[in-house]
Amino acid sequence: MASELTAVAAGGGHHWILDLADCRCERDMLCDAASMQTLCVQACADSGMRVVGQCFHQFQPEGVTGTVLLAESHLAIHTWPELNYVALDVYVCDYSSSNVGKGQRLVRCLRDMLKARAVREHQVPRSSVREPSAS
Amino acid sequence: MASELTAVAAGGGHHWILDLADCRCERDMLCDAASMQTLCVQACADSGMRVVGQCFHQFQPEGVTGTVLLAESHLAIHTWPELNYVALDVYVCDYSSSNVGKGQRLVRCLRDMLKARAVREHQVPRSSVREPSAS
Repeated sequence: MASELTAVAAGGGHHWILDLADCRCERDMLCDAASMQTLCVQACADSGMRVVGQCFHQFQPEGVTGTVLLAESHLAIHTWPELNYVALDVYVCDYSSSNVGKGQRLVRCLRDMLKARAVREHQVPRSSVREPSAS
Repeated sequence: MASELTAVAAGGGHHWILDLADCRCERDMLCDAASMQTLCVQACADSGMRVVGQCFHQFQPEGVTGTVLLAESHLAIHTWPELNYVALDVYVCDYSSSNVGKGQRLVRCLRDMLKARAVREHQVPRSSVREPSAS
């Protein structure tokens, strides 16, 4: 049991999946990869995350897809400006300590920035531990 | 109704979240960022995806975090070699046509490569459409 608890702490984590519809933020934020990259990296830093990589792609004529790699795992974002829609993921692992609080701050920060009027949110716990067999 | 259906087609998608425990693949695959990057990018191409960006980070002394940006959305992967554990995400949007088949091929390809003995899988439908209000 002790080893199982250790594994949960080492390999566990938390994943937020958000579909943000009817976003009323500045249009540049949804259209322009450089603008979105700057905002996402800043939001990660402001939430106490350690950024270890970043990659954003500009779609033509508009739209962004990008990820920020974190010591705590990742943020991924995809925008459809023509629909005012953003697909957002934040995943934090709990390698040496719980990062759930940082993840919650990051999700809140991005939600506030995007000004979505409708949000569908899923939360998925992550774990390295094998499911117990059905008996 | 017609406009809602159009929005579903344009802003919909599918997200696979896999926790792969007890992975029995080559150890280099879990430890080395360059090895993992090559395998992931190849798997995306083999599955019919269009790669538009990639970013992988090498943790010390071992372990990888990385993402491949796709025209169809993204793949994200994180490894804990000391636990033989991998956290994997594949998200495909359905912008101009359904990409679910490509996503299924990519997930299967990576599962086969990682040789996990225990897999916990969540599938989350994504959508740009506002939820109908509760009545």
